[in-house]
Amino acid sequence: MNEKDIKKLLEAVRNKEMDINQAMKALEDLPFKDLGFAKIDNHREIRVGYPEVIYCAGKTTEQVKNIVAFMLTKNNNILGTRADEAMYLAVKEICPEVHYNPLGRTLTIRKKEECLTDSYIAIVSAGTSDLPVVEEAAETAALLGNRVEKIVDVGVAGIHRLFSKLDMIRGAKVVIVIAGMEGALASVIGGLVDKPVIAVPTSVGYGANFGGVSALLSMLNSCASGVSVVNIDNGFGAAYNASIINKL
Amino acid sequence: MNEKDIKKLLEAVRNKEMDINQAMKALEDLPFKDLGFAKIDNHREIRVGYPEVIYCAGKTTEQVKNIVAFMLTKNNNILGTRADEAMYLAVKEICPEVHYNPLGRTLTIRKKEECLTDSYIAIVSAGTSDLPVVEEAAETAALLGNRVEKIVDVGVAGIHRLFSKLDMIRGAKVVIVIAGMEGALASVIGGLVDKPVIAVPTSVGYGANFGGVSALLSMLNSCASGVSVVNIDNGFGAAYNASIINKL
Amino acid sequence: MNEKDIKKLLEAVRNKEMDINQAMKALEDLPFKDLGFAKIDNHREIRVGYPEVIYCAGKTTEQVKNIVAFMLTKNNNILGTRADEAMYLAVKEICPEVHYNPLGRTLTIRKKEECLTDSYIAIVSAGTSDLPVVEEAAETAALLGNRVEKIVDVGVAGIHRLFSKLDMIRGAKVVIVIAGMEGALASVIGGLVDKPVIAVPTSVGYGANFGGVSALLSMLNSCASGVSVVNIDNGFGAAYNASIINKL
Amino acid sequence: MNEKDIKKLLEAVRNKEMDINQAMKALEDLPFKDLGFAKIDNHREIRVGYPEVIYCAGKTTEQVKNIVAFMLTKNNNILGTRADEAMYLAVKEICPEVHYNPLGRTLTIRKKEECLTDSYIAIVSAGTSDLPVVEEAAETAALLGNRVEKIVDVGVAGIHRLFSKLDMIRGAKVVIVIAGMEGALASVIGGLVDKPVIAVPTSVGYGANFGGVSALLSMLNSCASGVSVVNIDNGFGAAYNASIINKL
Amino acid sequence: MNEKDIKKLLEAVRNKEMDINQAMKALEDLPFKDLGFAKIDNHREIRVGYPEVIYCAGKTTEQVKNIVAFMLTKNNNILGTRADEAMYLAVKEICPEVHYNPLGRTLTIRKKEECLTDSYIAIVSAGTSDLPVVEEAAETAALLGNRVEKIVDVGVAGIHRLFSKLDMIRGAKVVIVIAGMEGALASVIGGLVDKPVIAVPTSVGYGANFGGVSALLSMLNSCASGVSVVNIDNGFGAAYNASIINKL
Amino acid sequence: MNEKDIKKLLEAVRNKEMDINQAMKALEDLPFKDLGFAKIDNHREIRVGYPEVIYCAGKTTEQVKNIVAFMLTKNNNILGTRADEAMYLAVKEICPEVHYNPLGRTLTIRKKEECLTDSYIAIVSAGTSDLPVVEEAAETAALLGNRVEKIVDVGVAGIHRLFSKLDMIRGAKVVIVIAGMEGALASVIGGLVDKPVIAVPTSVGYGANFGGVSALLSMLNSCASGVSVVNIDNGFGAAYNASIINKL
Amino acid sequence: MNEKDIKKLLEAVRNKEMDINQAMKALEDLPFKDLGFAKIDNHREIRVGYPEVIYCAGKTTEQVKNIVAFMLTKNNNILGTRADEAMYLAVKEICPEVHYNPLGRTLTIRKKEECLTDSYIAIVSAGTSDLPVVEEAAETAALLGNRVEKIVDVGVAGIHRLFSKLDMIRGAKVVIVIAGMEGALASVIGGLVDKPVIAVPTSVGYGANFGGVSALLSMLNSCASGVSVVNIDNGFGAAYNASIINKL
Amino acid sequence: MNEKDIKKLLEAVRNKEMDINQAMKALEDLPFKDLGFAKIDNHREIRVGYPEVIYCAGKTTEQVKNIVAFMLTKNNNILGTRADEAMYLAVKEICPEVHYNPLGRTLTIRKKEECLTDSYIAIVSAGTSDLPVVEEAAETAALLGNRVEKIVDVGVAGIHRLFSKLDMIRGAKVVIVIAGMEGALASVIGGLVDKPVIAVPTSVGYGANFGGVSALLSMLNSCASGVSVVNIDNGFGAAYNASIINKL
Repeated sequence: MNEKDIKKLLEAVRNKEMDINQAMKALEDLPFKDLGFAKIDNHREIRVGYPEVIYCAGKTTEQVKNIVAFMLTKNNNILGTRADEAMYLAVKEICPEVHYNPLGRTLTIRKKEECLTDSYIAIVSAGTSDLPVVEEAAETAALLGNRVEKIVDVGVAGIHRLFSKLDMIRGAKVVIVIAGMEGALASVIGGLVDKPVIAVPTSVGYGANFGGVSALLSMLNSCASGVSVVNIDNGFGAAYNASIINKL
Repeated sequence: MNEKDIKKLLEAVRNKEMDINQAMKALEDLPFKDLGFAKIDNHREIRVGYPEVIYCAGKTTEQVKNIVAFMLTKNNNILGTRADEAMYLAVKEICPEVHYNPLGRTLTIRKKEECLTDSYIAIVSAGTSDLPVVEEAAETAALLGNRVEKIVDVGVAGIHRLFSKLDMIRGAKVVIVIAGMEGALASVIGGLVDKPVIAVPTSVGYGANFGGVSALLSMLNSCASGVSVVNIDNGFGAAYNASIINKL
Repeated sequence: MNEKDIKKLLEAVRNKEMDINQAMKALEDLPFKDLGFAKIDNHREIRVGYPEVIYCAGKTTEQVKNIVAFMLTKNNNILGTRADEAMYLAVKEICPEVHYNPLGRTLTIRKKEECLTDSYIAIVSAGTSDLPVVEEAAETAALLGNRVEKIVDVGVAGIHRLFSKLDMIRGAKVVIVIAGMEGALASVIGGLVDKPVIAVPTSVGYGANFGGVSALLSMLNSCASGVSVVNIDNGFGAAYNASIINKL
Repeated sequence: MNEKDIKKLLEAVRNKEMDINQAMKALEDLPFKDLGFAKIDNHREIRVGYPEVIYCAGKTTEQVKNIVAFMLTKNNNILGTRADEAMYLAVKEICPEVHYNPLGRTLTIRKKEECLTDSYIAIVSAGTSDLPVVEEAAETAALLGNRVEKIVDVGVAGIHRLFSKLDMIRGAKVVIVIAGMEGALASVIGGLVDKPVIAVPTSVGYGANFGGVSALLSMLNSCASGVSVVNIDNGFGAAYNASIINKL
Repeated sequence: MNEKDIKKLLEAVRNKEMDINQAMKALEDLPFKDLGFAKIDNHREIRVGYPEVIYCAGKTTEQVKNIVAFMLTKNNNILGTRADEAMYLAVKEICPEVHYNPLGRTLTIRKKEECLTDSYIAIVSAGTSDLPVVEEAAETAALLGNRVEKIVDVGVAGIHRLFSKLDMIRGAKVVIVIAGMEGALASVIGGLVDKPVIAVPTSVGYGANFGGVSALLSMLNSCASGVSVVNIDNGFGAAYNASIINKL
Repeated sequence: MNEKDIKKLLEAVRNKEMDINQAMKALEDLPFKDLGFAKIDNHREIRVGYPEVIYCAGKTTEQVKNIVAFMLTKNNNILGTRADEAMYLAVKEICPEVHYNPLGRTLTIRKKEECLTDSYIAIVSAGTSDLPVVEEAAETAALLGNRVEKIVDVGVAGIHRLFSKLDMIRGAKVVIVIAGMEGALASVIGGLVDKPVIAVPTSVGYGANFGGVSALLSMLNSCASGVSVVNIDNGFGAAYNASIINKL
Repeated sequence: MNEKDIKKLLEAVRNKEMDINQAMKALEDLPFKDLGFAKIDNHREIRVGYPEVIYCAGKTTEQVKNIVAFMLTKNNNILGTRADEAMYLAVKEICPEVHYNPLGRTLTIRKKEECLTDSYIAIVSAGTSDLPVVEEAAETAALLGNRVEKIVDVGVAGIHRLFSKLDMIRGAKVVIVIAGMEGALASVIGGLVDKPVIAVPTSVGYGANFGGVSALLSMLNSCASGVSVVNIDNGFGAAYNASIINKL
Repeated sequence: MNEKDIKKLLEAVRNKEMDINQAMKALEDLPFKDLGFAKIDNHREIRVGYPEVIYCAGKTTEQVKNIVAFMLTKNNNILGTRADEAMYLAVKEICPEVHYNPLGRTLTIRKKEECLTDSYIAIVSAGTSDLPVVEEAAETAALLGNRVEKIVDVGVAGIHRLFSKLDMIRGAKVVIVIAGMEGALASVIGGLVDKPVIAVPTSVGYGANFGGVSALLSMLNSCASGVSVVNIDNGFGAAYNASIINKL
């Protein structure tokens, strides 16, 4: 409801084409519309193919199942992150086509087939132990309708492995770098590509790794300029972010 | 130098159109080119209008002056960040047209006039004390050739100030959010726009702010999904990042 | 027992209206009374309806059961926080009417029915995973005789959800805000209401959340001025505090 | 502008007592009002005697002077916190009646004389070095119209000093406890009074005090239940909070 | 072996009352004796009644059993700290008179009955959850031959409980204060007694307690001057320390 | 004033040997005496030779001077810690015999000559940079009437230096160990003596020393059992503590 | 492939002794060789006896088994660190000669018998609880072909134990010091030997040990100059490092 | 003095070729010699050309001058680290040939010309701001008699700069890597060379760099195995360490 609509409404009132109660009802949710929340809703929840997201950790199996049951009524794609196997089995009872990625701990339900983007997101990771985060990011990006290329196990301890994949990384529209330990991979890639790099520190490592803090600080202090960072192990957030950029 | 080029070269050798020393010289810097370093160089240093950047903190006034002197020989735009006034005066001796932003602590030298992008970067900040970071980001983004809109002093303590500027924020292609204290602004904006949000925690605050840690952690843990984070007070990094995205 | 009382007592001794043993008994706990400890006791332990509180974590099931058994002799309301199910079952053996809230991990035994306050405490929370803390706070506040309104799942990522509940929040005499992750909800509400806001950071989140530290720091650094903070996940403390204020 | 106002407006339009442009103008800021922002404004800025607040740290003397100059046009009371002497002198040029508390680093300008509350706020502190925070709190509370009682230098190392002042502390409607070092005073008082206690950790101390962290953690972990906490050295915040409660 | 002993030995060699191999053997461990290590050994291991100590955490049940078996050959008292029940059962197989304190997690084997000191160590604690540390300290102090008085559950939230026990605390030669949460008890007692106070922070608490850090920092920053601190939950260390002082 | 005294007083009232006003005066400070606060006072403030202590940091020169002026009226010894030279000069104006130790930053005023203890406190330190803390401890211990032996510069990097002083260290009744960097000296001495060891971490060092944290943690985690710890750089606290033990 | 090789190749092409496709294939991985990656490979993977290393933590049993299966095809020695028993049993199925060290949690497969170095690595540790790290280091060093001497349980609390082993420690070419708690052993040894000392902090300890942080900081701040540090519990890294030095 | 020496001495006593007083004198410092302290001394202090080292920070100019004056009497090379210019000028008064490196803050006095090693130490650094640490390391290594090669400004943001210097780095016997910010250079070099790498984190950076912590954690968590770490900004320690290895 924009200025023109309000003017029209007032004219209708003046011309007595509309009675006052009707007018008041129309004005009732004006604030929300005017503030653009509907646009948000439009964008986030109503648009075809955009998934509903459930962060399953800290919820009971029962709660997850109920939330999915409710979401299924809206016929949207659904993504559950940090889901354990019991949650998967519970959801499967009410939605047999649910897909579970045990490494990435994601539940995905595809109600609508999204056509994929032409440009792709490169998901690059340092070591085998980072794979759960890679999978979470990949499942998220794919369900959001992005083409994805995974380039795994190219940590800087053997930098030639990275160089042999450089073309594929550079071809992406946006790059997600996933690394634990000292997280140096983000800086090295940041210095080699001219695309936005979203770095995901992982909690992989031990001792003075402090559950991912070493990689997190590394990435925040990256000497390469095009790097921004999301939370430790937050594959979902990185992919969501990358998807927004990839679809610009 | 790609596969085809190498093939052509080898054929020229076989046909004796090229002698072996010439061929060896041509092959000499193959590794670098093949690894794409030249592309990097191309992108970072040779392209018209792309600035050279000096991080002035931790350097002596003498060093800054010398680096600028060297850079001036290349006829590029130049950006100095975290520069104090003494550095400005020293640089001014060798380059009278240098511009100094005392709030943002930036030195800028424009050798080439870049045409600005159509799309713009919104730089949103919470309070007056965040202005130095705003200015650093704005100077950086502008020198990189981006159109910039600044929306300052819209912290969440008086959220109506934010809503009155929402249209301008939503109109941007990428949004930089700069906030200290609890940094809640990033989450609130992240929930209201569908564009990539780059959050910059600032060291503004006192006590348990710990030099920006509270805002940093806030932003990393943002419940809104489209938010990525750069280092504390890193206005330059945010703008550099935003510029890459804005020019995609 | 104030100065006047002592004087009267001494006069009674002089006049032999009171014998010396009686007088000594009356003076016996003078220090405590004079220092006001008795008032404290009065307030905390003797007043009808005020519950006895047991912090069950770090105690054995046996210990909890014994403490409850002892308290039951005093005929007061009883509250156990951080109680697991085994504790519930053990207490049930000696007090069948005990109520257990498995989400809030509270045991409640009502010996006296308190009449509720007219004014109410609003308990506002950001996400589903914060519910255990919400429940602990709600059970505590209710047993302390307060009317309570719960407004859950109104995190700032979708700020329109919050606005639709604003009237109910503003109608409260005191507001408890419970949020994990970046805890921005406290600042946003703090900027929208003119009532005391007690913020409870929760350990909900992952990575750089550090078990609630990110939300804790956020809330301590809130740019809204009417916000004070209790310990991470301390729903009980927030409700206790709110109850004192609500009953002023 | 409530429902009734809107109805009246629509009737005026229908009756042509008001033309459409006038009506649109009246409706223009409806969303803000309807969301209650005006109420906030009402409360925070327009109500007689409620001060405007400037956090001076991180601002230049120039900026502070300009902000005060603007505020003076609104004829409200003004409070500047964390102001240094230079700022005071600058403000004095444009407002000779400004009062400066050098210990509390506050600037106060009284345009309206508020009648004080009957109930009072007790401000209790542990040691001489906590006085700057005491003064900030006291100036804030007083300018907000509260009666204030200061009880200083009653740290727990000589607990009898505290007991001799207990009646005055207990007589307050709300108690602010300000302590550095180990901050034990908050717990001790929390166990002795039945009023809300707002604890302010101070950065007083050395070594493992870590700029107030030891007192902050102490207060957050207080074994006394009625204690809530504000940021380190945040005398202003505590007083603001206490004022809201004192005026309930 | 002192100077006189060496002289005597050399004379015996000269007089051929001792052959050279014998003399060399006697000189062999001279360095150790001369540096006083034997005195240490004397004190720590050989003196009747002084216990051998095993820190059981991080050792296997097998290792603990073997160490005890070896120690039993020396006929000394034995103390095992942080022992679980499996360790107890394993040790019981080879030493049926072993005593296990399940709360304090100590194993004690008494081979010699020590006569107790006249003066006593007061072990004061704040809450029920601190009891495991109290028990570890008490068992240690007792096995080291000290008279011990336990005063438990006198936390500062109800400070009158503490005052009613003050005489017993003041009667001790050295006081151990054990407290978690904010650890204020150490400061309060430190201000009330003129004996050395050894403070033991415990990991009791939650949230911003950080496993005992809040109490640790509190105690290190105690405003009372006679307080020194040992590691978190280190009941053994406090008792060992107190025993040295008690026996001075 | 014990039970018997009260009885006697009441009898005197009854027999009219004492009038009521006298009796009330006698009862007036009963609570304090009964709780033993007077004993404390007795010990801390009234006993001849016991110094009054001022922690000068965070106080103004004016405040320090005024406090000293007041204390001088009581004719006690006076100790000021963390005093700068300006404070010294200000105090000298009102008390010419004040002594200033610029390294230890202590002010000492001796009004009464204490006879020294027979037993002594050994103050052992690792390096030259720890001397300020050594001096603060030595001045404190001496003014409290203790014989002191300083053994400086015996850090573990050249452990033979330590061994050559071992007899003097072992001869003490209590040992203060002052060390920065990694603070290993406390553990080494703790393993070599059978006296109480009070460890003082210093902020000497750089980088990951974190202002004394590395030495603090070292000392708290000492593998030698007789070591307790005071705050970083807290030479005063260590000496105060040692004095209590030395005078047992 | 060096310059001479390239020249020869080009001559072969010119002389048509080699066709162009063959030449291109030979040039294909030129960049890698020229950058020396092949040398790395040579060193790390191809040299007889040099083991392949798998960090098993964070990998599934399945993954570990598959990686070993692949490595077995290359006929090299294999080392698995942080392996649990299930991994051992799984690997045993495909390689019966695998050796498992349950304390050190290492899997070792010897395909080639390395002749040992003449010089040896001394692995020195403080206490029994450090043995897992000792074993990891010892297994690593041995498989890398080094002679190893273990000197365990020589912590500084009983420093005479250390001195009796000093000759063996000094005889090494490089010394690994493994210690938890306060990690003082590294400094003491660093002051006694003139060989490189590699310090490994362990997570042994409790309370303010913070999972090895106290030992880590101690070692980084060592007052002895020849000490460098690896990550907490990183026995493998220390041994790898020591092996490089031992073989210089 | 070894076993054979002692035997010979005893025989001389027996044969009366040596009187007992002489023999006792010879045995007098046996412990020290036997424990090898003399060897240490030999190594550290007596050997020609080995420098005496003064850590000047935290010492007064006066103290530094006096220590140098004393050292000059021994005719050794002298190294002062963290020296400011005032110290330089003071030392120059008593030793005009002293050399001051203002960037590295080192004082060096060469009394003996050491012949340099054949092998060299490579000192590699990331950025211009790391130069002070580079200079400290280089001055130290040179004074200790090592050949040094500096390779500066080869941070990973432009990794081609590093590769062009790889041969020089690989030619060293030991490599020192000096980097601030995220310290990724250590990992990258660690993966490219087969020599021991000593990493020095620097405090260069801002925000979440936390004075060098980010680089420190990065280096401790390096995924490359041959990397060990010294304290933040500790160029001296790295060079000392490297010198020991270089001279093996």
